[in-house]
Amino acid sequence: MISSQFTRDLCIRDSDAKILLLVVDGLGGLPHPDTGISELETAQLPHLDALARGGTCGLISPLGAGFTPGSGPAHLALFGYDPWTSVIGRGALSALGLGLDFARGDIATRLNFCTVDSEGLVQDRRAGRIPTEKGRALCEILQTIDVPGAEVTVAAEMEYRAGVVFRGEGLGDAVSDSDPQITGAPPKPLVAGDGPSGRTVDVAKVFLAQVAEKLADERPANMVLMRGFGRYPELAQMDEVYGLKAMGIAGYPMYRGVAGAVGMDVAEVNWDLESECALLESCWADYDFFYMHVKKTDSAGEDGNFDLKVQLLEELDTYIPRLQALQPDVLIVTGDHSTPAIMRSHSWHPVPTAIAGEWALADAAVAFSERGCAAGSLGVIPSTSLMSLALAHARRLDKYGA
Amino acid sequence: MISSQFTRDLCIRDSDAKILLLVVDGLGGLPHPDTGISELETAQLPHLDALARGGTCGLISPLGAGFTPGSGPAHLALFGYDPWTSVIGRGALSALGLGLDFARGDIATRLNFCTVDSEGLVQDRRAGRIPTEKGRALCEILQTIDVPGAEVTVAAEMEYRAGVVFRGEGLGDAVSDSDPQITGAPPKPLVAGDGPSGRTVDVAKVFLAQVAEKLADERPANMVLMRGFGRYPELAQMDEVYGLKAMGIAGYPMYRGVAGAVGMDVAEVNWDLESECALLESCWADYDFFYMHVKKTDSAGEDGNFDLKVQLLEELDTYIPRLQALQPDVLIVTGDHSTPAIMRSHSWHPVPTAIAGEWALADAAVAFSERGCAAGSLGVIPSTSLMSLALAHARRLDKYGA
Repeated sequence: MISSQFTRDLCIRDSDAKILLLVVDGLGGLPHPDTGISELETAQLPHLDALARGGTCGLISPLGAGFTPGSGPAHLALFGYDPWTSVIGRGALSALGLGLDFARGDIATRLNFCTVDSEGLVQDRRAGRIPTEKGRALCEILQTIDVPGAEVTVAAEMEYRAGVVFRGEGLGDAVSDSDPQITGAPPKPLVAGDGPSGRTVDVAKVFLAQVAEKLADERPANMVLMRGFGRYPELAQMDEVYGLKAMGIAGYPMYRGVAGAVGMDVAEVNWDLESECALLESCWADYDFFYMHVKKTDSAGEDGNFDLKVQLLEELDTYIPRLQALQPDVLIVTGDHSTPAIMRSHSWHPVPTAIAGEWALADAAVAFSERGCAAGSLGVIPSTSLMSLALAHARRLDKYGA
Repeated sequence: MISSQFTRDLCIRDSDAKILLLVVDGLGGLPHPDTGISELETAQLPHLDALARGGTCGLISPLGAGFTPGSGPAHLALFGYDPWTSVIGRGALSALGLGLDFARGDIATRLNFCTVDSEGLVQDRRAGRIPTEKGRALCEILQTIDVPGAEVTVAAEMEYRAGVVFRGEGLGDAVSDSDPQITGAPPKPLVAGDGPSGRTVDVAKVFLAQVAEKLADERPANMVLMRGFGRYPELAQMDEVYGLKAMGIAGYPMYRGVAGAVGMDVAEVNWDLESECALLESCWADYDFFYMHVKKTDSAGEDGNFDLKVQLLEELDTYIPRLQALQPDVLIVTGDHSTPAIMRSHSWHPVPTAIAGEWALADAAVAFSERGCAAGSLGVIPSTSLMSLALAHARRLDKYGA
């Protein structure tokens, strides 16, 4: 993982070798009770299975045995950053992903459009999941808000989600959420944990008062809830740490956010595989390291849709030859965490992982699945170890010590 | 493991799920030279094997590869406490287990009744393993000892073992053992590592002089050796750390001691499986977490009695359905450490572990044994990870990070 020791000890070697890290969100699953086999075991995955047979396999654990990660810590771990100490607030992640003007000293938070009744009680925390287009139109209205002493930038995310960045003197990010998490209650008051955060609360209150005014006649989205205040993250950048010119390819904004926070270039792209592959191909010549993110598998898992997750994995499998056609020196297929459809949530189960490349030992794993990769030779390793393995297989690490 | 980070970050979720942790002392073994198979592999264990087949298996390492733990660190690790920094002196463990009046500031040490000759040389470090009843009678004699400036409480443990608690002003616990570890030598002088411990040595010397006097006419137990000075441990309590109301079920006092030290309720019980099971059943409704300790397997291992250890494992196996009948949400069978009969001692070998529950992936492990569990999907993990796994499988942990 990235610690002062790690950055000091990493002996980066010059190389042209290209690394492709394919992150299948929520990849790991659990057996369906009717069949006794998991999503990956159910899916027909000829290309991924071949990759597992020819490569080095194992399971990666984002936070250590038993801990279920959110997307932020899970991705930071994949990129080699200690997920317990390298924290990016959700709002900061969103702001980065949205490409908002967000820089050192700024404070970001997520906005969820919601419905409040005439007494200000929250009736729907997601405003009926308004379409993304509606969210964009509402954000244009919010962008007209003027807060004395602060710059405010608003941008729409998917559906009812948006983000806001506050820029001003001495703002802190220790601010509680206003989302009451239940309906029938008013938004919670924002509470500051320290002096600078008190200034953020002052700014946010002025902002919220104007939101209420400007959206008064809108339905169903007539208010916003705030969640996950966070400052611009100050993380070591991948080019400095790994000597990698890195590109992050992710249709879903938050994953572009975390990629950007560790110094990857990012570009807007749709979140279907075709679009992501096309972007990958178009910039293949320009980078050393590619992080490509597949979102829909996680959503299917979260929705408890076992069959859809199977289908999405099968669709993904058909893209593997296209990735291989680019001839990456190292191709790694893994996930940020498990999202078993039968649990309808992220889980702690370690994530199947295959490393393909010239120096990867083909081990006992013959199938790309939870149990298949458990038979591999990597064992169960921390997700934070994956980057050093990627660099090693790319011959991008010198030996340590004489 | 329990560190400041861990306790801060653990996101405990309310749940009614019950966890049963069955700790088979000295569980792991090594192959008998005549057969090439271990105690667990020799024993007929239909229920444990079924548990392994249906659950998630692996090996747990109490202190990391190569380190052999004593019972104290091994158990602290099982309960999620860093065994290298959370130290309980052996004497403190005994005192806790004996239910002695033992509180903050007190110093405890183990007493072993021994036989000394007319010159004071130790002839038998265990006084012929006097029966427990005899030990109790002798402790009543020692309880009459009066040390100026200190309160002394003595209690018998099993056979030749006893414990003593010293209460006084400013006592330290950096005191060396008097047990010479060999026969034909006198007890070692107690040596203090610091000023407060010097006061403890003064108290202990007065105590020992009176012991010699009061037991002068006793045979074979005419003296005591002191081992394992320790202060009352100040450990985080399981209800605070894990949100668990925990019960420790152990016939052998020292294990009640460590359970008590981490905040479990304990009750005196005989150390046979029948008695322990009956206690478990009687308090099943009242707790979230149950630690049940099986001692005799370790003793058989320490005695080098391979066949007895096999027989005890087979006896234990017959109790598994009775434990399952309680319908624990999570049932974990493991050990604190390995005690291979062919080594006649604790060892560093990681310990077979099976986790059964709704969210446990049935992996490649098909037998509950050292090699069987090595085929499981947990890999070799620190014993300190077991509690987070237990909580995870009980859905008692929220995800970490957004």
